[in-house]
Amino acid sequence: MQLARVIGTVVVTPKDGNLHGVTLLLIQPIAPSRTPVGKPLVAADSVGAGVGEEVFFVRGKEASFPFHPVDVPVDAGIVGVVDAIDT
Amino acid sequence: MQLARVIGTVVVTPKDGNLHGVTLLLIQPIAPSRTPVGKPLVAADSVGAGVGEEVFFVRGKEASFPFHPVDVPVDAGIVGVVDAIDT
Amino acid sequence: MQLARVIGTVVVTPKDGNLHGVTLLLIQPIAPSRTPVGKPLVAADSVGAGVGEEVFFVRGKEASFPFHPVDVPVDAGIVGVVDAIDT
Amino acid sequence: MQLARVIGTVVVTPKDGNLHGVTLLLIQPIAPSRTPVGKPLVAADSVGAGVGEEVFFVRGKEASFPFHPVDVPVDAGIVGVVDAIDT
Amino acid sequence: MQLARVIGTVVVTPKDGNLHGVTLLLIQPIAPSRTPVGKPLVAADSVGAGVGEEVFFVRGKEASFPFHPVDVPVDAGIVGVVDAIDT
Repeated sequence: MQLARVIGTVVVTPKDGNLHGVTLLLIQPIAPSRTPVGKPLVAADSVGAGVGEEVFFVRGKEASFPFHPVDVPVDAGIVGVVDAIDT
Repeated sequence: MQLARVIGTVVVTPKDGNLHGVTLLLIQPIAPSRTPVGKPLVAADSVGAGVGEEVFFVRGKEASFPFHPVDVPVDAGIVGVVDAIDT
Repeated sequence: MQLARVIGTVVVTPKDGNLHGVTLLLIQPIAPSRTPVGKPLVAADSVGAGVGEEVFFVRGKEASFPFHPVDVPVDAGIVGVVDAIDT
Repeated sequence: MQLARVIGTVVVTPKDGNLHGVTLLLIQPIAPSRTPVGKPLVAADSVGAGVGEEVFFVRGKEASFPFHPVDVPVDAGIVGVVDAIDT
Repeated sequence: MQLARVIGTVVVTPKDGNLHGVTLLLIQPIAPSRTPVGKPLVAADSVGAGVGEEVFFVRGKEASFPFHPVDVPVDAGIVGVVDAIDT
């Protein structure tokens, strides 16, 4: 999983029916130092994260688990809001 | 998921029978600023996207969900047309 | 999926029994402009592609679909020969 | 799988219920020479690894195996502590 | 799949029980020219490969196929020893 900051929202015509009602957030992966690393991506949100918050997310099939039993076609999903990082 | 712009079409001899009738589009991933990022790729289209449109797509097994119950061998699929990106 | 050119063949002692009889080709991913992008890789071929041909391939679990019901341990597979790319 | 060093811990509001009680560690992938390679990431720990230890981890769906039958939404997991690397 | 050279062995405290008895080798991906490309990684070996040999390996879920029905948590596996590469 990676750390990220929520930087925006994305609205799509939910052409794929199983995406109906799924919140899509634009996130920027960050290092533990909070420096941006890599490219922004769109992730499904199931935890109610807001713009500016630090979250962590999973990639791949696991991103669809919180939406089961619906088969949501997502490959990235926010699964928690970060309370603390201790290094 | 990532944002992308549809930049062309690809026609293949559908040697794999399960690809018969699947629309294949050439897409260029973009950043929220619309700058191209990374390499173009071929994605299956199930939403009727056209050349020049901004879409978002999934990678991996999830790309085949819209075509179920047929097992389409695709690893990238367009799942929506972008209405708005708010950062 | 990505575009690629077939650049060679690979012969292996088929230590994994499920690979017996599977044709393995060396492919070089290419951009729509036909410029090489990234590293060559080995892909399973189920479409009878020949050296020098332009193909497109899938990565991941989907690469094994054409060989079902045998569980072939492959993570890249050629699924079509490119007829035309229109940009 | 890759080698890594445990460099910290991460505490999250376990918004995804299936993550409750799962230890999350911050790890830095390393080369056999112990030089850092690539970006830090967050991995689920099922082996009781401590900060400073050398571990190896898996990415993808396999990362959730140690937690079965719970479907934990993780895409990286520590599966062993390194005793020796012989090159 | 990618080509690689076996460069060492890794011994771990098999904290994950399903890894017990699985041989873990350190491999360096190589190009067809035999030049090293990218970072070394740890792969499960089911073909009896030795240090110095050229092999090819799969990434992802397919890496666990040779060990079925045990669910081994591995994301890279050697599936053959290279006899010849023809370009």
